[in-house]
Amino acid sequence: MRQVFQQELSEVQDRLVEIAELVKVAITDATAAFNESDLPMAEKVIEGDAKIDDLALSLDELSIQILARQQPVARDLRIVVSSLRMSASLERMGDIAEHIASLTRYRFPERVVAKGLRGTFREMGELDIEIAGKLVELLKSQENDIADEIRDLDDKVDALHLKVFGKVLDEAWGGTTADTVDATLASRYHERFGDHAVSISKKVKYLSTGDWVDQDNSLSR
Amino acid sequence: MRQVFQQELSEVQDRLVEIAELVKVAITDATAAFNESDLPMAEKVIEGDAKIDDLALSLDELSIQILARQQPVARDLRIVVSSLRMSASLERMGDIAEHIASLTRYRFPERVVAKGLRGTFREMGELDIEIAGKLVELLKSQENDIADEIRDLDDKVDALHLKVFGKVLDEAWGGTTADTVDATLASRYHERFGDHAVSISKKVKYLSTGDWVDQDNSLSR
Repeated sequence: MRQVFQQELSEVQDRLVEIAELVKVAITDATAAFNESDLPMAEKVIEGDAKIDDLALSLDELSIQILARQQPVARDLRIVVSSLRMSASLERMGDIAEHIASLTRYRFPERVVAKGLRGTFREMGELDIEIAGKLVELLKSQENDIADEIRDLDDKVDALHLKVFGKVLDEAWGGTTADTVDATLASRYHERFGDHAVSISKKVKYLSTGDWVDQDNSLSR
Repeated sequence: MRQVFQQELSEVQDRLVEIAELVKVAITDATAAFNESDLPMAEKVIEGDAKIDDLALSLDELSIQILARQQPVARDLRIVVSSLRMSASLERMGDIAEHIASLTRYRFPERVVAKGLRGTFREMGELDIEIAGKLVELLKSQENDIADEIRDLDDKVDALHLKVFGKVLDEAWGGTTADTVDATLASRYHERFGDHAVSISKKVKYLSTGDWVDQDNSLSR
């Protein structure tokens, strides 16, 4: 029974990695679409999100079946419960990539990123891609150091989020109202993407340290 | 054992209702603070959010203990797993109320809502308050009709969300860039509040009908 359980847990881990890999592709493509106003790329991301949703739903069903069949306790139980939460965060990260792509499509053929913000959004996008890549590594290796790296990358995204508002609210900002709306939404999406990754990292870290308290704080602020 | 389990499930339900009641207070106060630029009220909401976070965390611990002690299967298992997800959505609704209050504080002593949008945001706020009230009723009574009412109210919020963008992007919009940023964020927060309520309603409905599929769709869009 124990061996079957270990196999099932390993299946859960593999599926989390699989979803995280798709999320990485989604954010890579979404930020490329966004920064280059690439409509076909945006549509690819929008269509691809259903796959992430399906995989997350199917992983949740597996986790619930494991709870029913294996009746895990203690750390094993926490692993399965955490996987339910991590799949929800990954699914949400896919949604955010879709939202970023949708902004591009909505504005097409005009460019979605105003001139003065192109460098900042390029940086934010690169950080989000790096965060998604680190998340895949973390879910594969369970190495706590990677969780800390994700937190540091997210701090940089947060700083750029503030920088976007600083630029938009500066007198020198020459953007239209539509530019302001798009920049506000896009910046918020890029920032939330990182938050969800931090939330997942904290759960992975908690599973190795047993420190449950405050594991959800990144999403509370 | 069965009787203890039923008592514990009833405790979970009571705690979900308790948190939903606090969320209702939070959104009532947050929209009042937002619409009236009432700083003390905004600070009350911001300080009060920690209570919601604590209650949600403590409910999650209870749910995990129930899973470990009672080893529920079938519908009972789904109830406990759903409660973990509902608490996460309620906690997030509290965060959103806090975000709405924070916009008010950030802009104070200036008014956060631009003149042409006051009526629209008042309507959105009233709908979110009504949604929160219905959610308390639904969690108490488990009556599916209420879930449908929440979905209909959320459709109205979504329509107003589009209306805000329509107004802001109209040539007649005379707001500053800061007005545009605030309106964009505030409208998004009001809209997401309703989405989370719909997500919870779908879970309650699913628990009575057994229809698990697509239960999370409201958060996928």
